[in-house]
Amino acid sequence: MAEIKILKNIMDENLTQAAKNRQWFKTRHIVTLNLIASPGAGKTTFLEQTIRGLSPKHKLAVIEGDITGDHDAKRIEALGVPVVQINTEGGCHLDAHMIDSALSSLDLKDLSYLFIENVGNLVCPAEFDLGEDLKVVVLSTPEGHDKPAKYPLIFSEAQAVVINKMDLLPAVDFDLVQAERDIRKLNPNVPVFRLSSKTGEGLDKWLEWLTSKGTGNR
Amino acid sequence: MAEIKILKNIMDENLTQAAKNRQWFKTRHIVTLNLIASPGAGKTTFLEQTIRGLSPKHKLAVIEGDITGDHDAKRIEALGVPVVQINTEGGCHLDAHMIDSALSSLDLKDLSYLFIENVGNLVCPAEFDLGEDLKVVVLSTPEGHDKPAKYPLIFSEAQAVVINKMDLLPAVDFDLVQAERDIRKLNPNVPVFRLSSKTGEGLDKWLEWLTSKGTGNR
Repeated sequence: MAEIKILKNIMDENLTQAAKNRQWFKTRHIVTLNLIASPGAGKTTFLEQTIRGLSPKHKLAVIEGDITGDHDAKRIEALGVPVVQINTEGGCHLDAHMIDSALSSLDLKDLSYLFIENVGNLVCPAEFDLGEDLKVVVLSTPEGHDKPAKYPLIFSEAQAVVINKMDLLPAVDFDLVQAERDIRKLNPNVPVFRLSSKTGEGLDKWLEWLTSKGTGNR
Repeated sequence: MAEIKILKNIMDENLTQAAKNRQWFKTRHIVTLNLIASPGAGKTTFLEQTIRGLSPKHKLAVIEGDITGDHDAKRIEALGVPVVQINTEGGCHLDAHMIDSALSSLDLKDLSYLFIENVGNLVCPAEFDLGEDLKVVVLSTPEGHDKPAKYPLIFSEAQAVVINKMDLLPAVDFDLVQAERDIRKLNPNVPVFRLSSKTGEGLDKWLEWLTSKGTGNR
């Protein structure tokens, strides 16, 4: 079964590099977030709002993962935050080696938070540890409340779940109680933040939680 | 470069099986659709509406692809249409061998249309031919008009693009002109259907196009 062995090697090599990344971030007191969501769940808008909430008090940097293009990186750059774009050229997720390569292009001195926006996908990014401290999954209300049950791995691994686009709740069929029940079945103690990146509603609680994870550089 | 060779073998074997599937469908005059979209774009609701529009005049069957569970298959079954659930157990797409295995579980006599609902993902399913006649990509307005430019492969390969959740257009920032311009850059002559699977708006044109693709079994 050559296929399985090769796949195992890829996963093992990724874990080894992820452990190096994690140690590297830890010695520099950088809190690292891996943002994972479906295409169009609003990751970039959520990240923009998070940046507005944290800077200039905290020094931030961003790694943007996309199949192709630099649309999201330009949005982040417009906020005055250092950003590196990774193009996976078809690949459905970032991996720990890509993060290692991107770090050399960033000024990381006195950095408090590094945000990594993964490729829009609820499946593959869940399987690749990047060495981050916190996996944050963003679910938007138009996607439907059945997504945690249908894509369980990422919801079981997340250190926080964001339910985004709460402003659209009246217009869509999204059962908040059912969604949160399914999330808790997979991940009993995970914090769930209901918010709208568009209106700003609910962002304060998210920012409060995030700043409580800071480790000293500020 | 063992990894690359193994990957090439996987892709080649998939193409060989896809060609067999395609021939098999062709000799039976079955029109086969591969539905691809992000999680939560509304594929299953769109499929339910398509089934309501075609049956009982046309004989239909469905293959449901999901990471886990049979939530969507139960929704299709409730409409009285034969359905087979494939669970990829973490895999981010269906492949041609999975379709071949599923066919043995379906009564395909006099079938007009076989719908295959792929795993919710805009990346991996684009790379695996299933032997279908028509790849149909569903994009929902809350996902944003930038998705064709960010996930170009599937939009360039599709035989039809559905812009779903048109009922939410007033509540979201979705530029229809920009979206269609980006789609046409990738795929100049592809038909684009603007519709709402929730309200039924625009479904008539889609159904008219789809029935024009029928090959005889009805």
